[in-house]
Amino acid sequence: MPETKILLPESEIPTHWYNVVADMPNPPAPVLGPDGKPIGPEALAAIFPMNIIEQEVSSERWIPIPDEVREIYRLWRPSPLFRAHRLEQMLGTPAKIYYKYEGVSPAGSHKVNTAVPQAFYNREAGIKRLTTETGAGQWGSSIALAGQMFGLEVRVYMVKVSYEQKPFRRSMMHTWGAEVLPSPSPLTEAGRQILAAHPDSPGSLGIAISEAVEEAATRSDTNYSLGSVLNHVLLHQTVIGLEAKKQFELVGDYPDMVFAPCGGGSNFGGVAFPFLADKASGKAVRLVAVEPTSCPTLTRGHYAYDFGDSAGLTPLMKMYTLGHDFVPPGIHAGGLRYHGDSTLVSQLYHEGLVEAQAVAQLATFEAGLTFARAEGIIPAPESNHGIAACIEEALRCKESGESKTLFFNLSGHGHFDMAAYDRYFAHELEDYDYPSEAIEEALHHLPKVG
Amino acid sequence: MPETKILLPESEIPTHWYNVVADMPNPPAPVLGPDGKPIGPEALAAIFPMNIIEQEVSSERWIPIPDEVREIYRLWRPSPLFRAHRLEQMLGTPAKIYYKYEGVSPAGSHKVNTAVPQAFYNREAGIKRLTTETGAGQWGSSIALAGQMFGLEVRVYMVKVSYEQKPFRRSMMHTWGAEVLPSPSPLTEAGRQILAAHPDSPGSLGIAISEAVEEAATRSDTNYSLGSVLNHVLLHQTVIGLEAKKQFELVGDYPDMVFAPCGGGSNFGGVAFPFLADKASGKAVRLVAVEPTSCPTLTRGHYAYDFGDSAGLTPLMKMYTLGHDFVPPGIHAGGLRYHGDSTLVSQLYHEGLVEAQAVAQLATFEAGLTFARAEGIIPAPESNHGIAACIEEALRCKESGESKTLFFNLSGHGHFDMAAYDRYFAHELEDYDYPSEAIEEALHHLPKVG
Repeated sequence: MPETKILLPESEIPTHWYNVVADMPNPPAPVLGPDGKPIGPEALAAIFPMNIIEQEVSSERWIPIPDEVREIYRLWRPSPLFRAHRLEQMLGTPAKIYYKYEGVSPAGSHKVNTAVPQAFYNREAGIKRLTTETGAGQWGSSIALAGQMFGLEVRVYMVKVSYEQKPFRRSMMHTWGAEVLPSPSPLTEAGRQILAAHPDSPGSLGIAISEAVEEAATRSDTNYSLGSVLNHVLLHQTVIGLEAKKQFELVGDYPDMVFAPCGGGSNFGGVAFPFLADKASGKAVRLVAVEPTSCPTLTRGHYAYDFGDSAGLTPLMKMYTLGHDFVPPGIHAGGLRYHGDSTLVSQLYHEGLVEAQAVAQLATFEAGLTFARAEGIIPAPESNHGIAACIEEALRCKESGESKTLFFNLSGHGHFDMAAYDRYFAHELEDYDYPSEAIEEALHHLPKVG
Repeated sequence: MPETKILLPESEIPTHWYNVVADMPNPPAPVLGPDGKPIGPEALAAIFPMNIIEQEVSSERWIPIPDEVREIYRLWRPSPLFRAHRLEQMLGTPAKIYYKYEGVSPAGSHKVNTAVPQAFYNREAGIKRLTTETGAGQWGSSIALAGQMFGLEVRVYMVKVSYEQKPFRRSMMHTWGAEVLPSPSPLTEAGRQILAAHPDSPGSLGIAISEAVEEAATRSDTNYSLGSVLNHVLLHQTVIGLEAKKQFELVGDYPDMVFAPCGGGSNFGGVAFPFLADKASGKAVRLVAVEPTSCPTLTRGHYAYDFGDSAGLTPLMKMYTLGHDFVPPGIHAGGLRYHGDSTLVSQLYHEGLVEAQAVAQLATFEAGLTFARAEGIIPAPESNHGIAACIEEALRCKESGESKTLFFNLSGHGHFDMAAYDRYFAHELEDYDYPSEAIEEALHHLPKVG
């Protein structure tokens, strides 16, 4: 039987990140200021270091990965590419199924791939502290770990309801030395305003972002760090797809379809963009972003300029959006509960270079359970979206007799999400029907531009 | 800089387990029945399949690993050997530090290495169901996963207090299809007796063992499975040490000292025994079993015949023991709370071929935190014992200027033990002083033999 795990030596950790902007048919839509005019890089300098801002706006195809970052990557990279022999057998499909496993990182997901360079560039810029927000805690854990690696203090504003319900993600951040505060907090103007109006506010990602950005903008030793959506974040995640391509080469195979969960877009962009580069040279690979039906940004949202946060404090970005004031239902794939999407993913989807599918919550847990029983690993609820779409395709192959090569990114493990599995076992989870009127209504909430 | 992870291809998964009995200066002390006379293999046939019983009493040096077991091992084996560059730097030690990481298994610890062959041999013997007990849940998770892989039903009697306090280990077992019951339960005579006398009993490992064994002994389709102590369990774990030796060869190094936590002995035996084989050929390697000061079996216990369980239902085994009715303090390294020790480890310790150290609880958490901040991975509380002893030695090397090669087994991750870290951060943990009088007193509780 062929190998189960396709491994690369550390010398094969990519030396450069791949910037998809260089290969896009059209340049990315500009980011606009409150006046509707394109903003320059300097507008971001209050909260990001210049190296990161340069990456955010770069159109260079290859961007070198600093040695210091590659040294940290070596703690878990290259991550293994698995051939899912047992899953194929369990499904009885003629399709070949592969998955890249990013849960091998100490923080348990792909998020560390960008947390590490972000911490590095900030330290290089003389920054002593980072602030960020976290919901479910995958991102907060990752930046806590990265901050520890480069000697930066980290303060995480954690959505209060998660802070109370997910104490062990919080413990993980403490282990790596980060400070974790429930948001809204009395430490920022944004937090104090919310608390004055709603003393019992459970918090939201939007509020937590406002607090983290406010603190970074007002302290010169402190910057802000974001875990998805932005171009530089997707750029850093391309180590996933770049490694996967080398691993497919090793076994003489190549995917017909690539699946990844899509919330802010960094998971999907990270694995898919390096394959997208091959489309120009004639490869017929299909790239599928998989989102929840309860937050169907790409599949049912509007392609328009909108704010990145719910309070409307960020610049305007052109993206698929359900309206920045959209509050997705409380599904357990917290990492996919975002009203918008990366501008890069949005534009590539709009231009037909990538595809999108929406999957209902119960189907994602069913897929995750099937996967865990075949392959052992218990996936994060976000990761279950990519698995569900891949299994569906594998079963179509069974019907049609096609032996396609299918590939998904297993972005993280579910060790800190077992309460969600418990609710699934107890039949307490449900699917959400998103009404068409709400989609229409969102149109009226979009900011007026130009 | 040399590689961080020393990897082996799947073709290097060992083809045979190493049986230390073949190289022991004296044959293992016989197992005795209630009458004080040696028992034969047939006495175990009610609860174990014959293949496993043969391994339990074998003195063959090499025992072949079935292909079906190696196929499952491929999901996570060979496990990586890490060079702890960052830990060495943080300690400022001239010592070289390596660790083997068994937390890469889907169940998160080394326990699966024996769960898989145990499930396989039982299926081969026509058994449909397995029963077992679990305390903290590492073993229960492992046998749940292994049962799923070979289509066996698994029922886990989980100590009631853990069942209630560690819901997520329970969820993990459910994910892999096992049934989990709080023990004492009304399903067995042993459970009913306890419940009649103590309706609110929090349970104990001893009670849970009695329930699991009783069910296996009274149902012909059901066998019992144990996660440590017995010879065949230590045998299966030798894949750890065998792989590690190949990995050291790859980098042209060899450990001066090997450290592993020691509770029932399978973690320590698994990593240390293959190195012990080299002692005969003149290698000066020191093998150090590390136990908690609160349960100092090897370092302060009596070398005598005792029961394996607290109720006195098992045959008598010669081992270091604190008395089978000893109830260790509620430390968080649940896997090390055992009154006795493997007969093989005990005899080798008695004969001076392996060493033992005891470490206090707070020191183990301090070591785990240092490790997590240097290397990223958050270790299980059990694993912290090996780390603590290794760090202590590395700091001695710093004093003396010696550049020893130190090696420990990182037996599992701490993702399901974050509550213990929280208590450490909150200064709620304490060390336990074990009074000498209690050690003396235990002598009077040992069963009379011969």
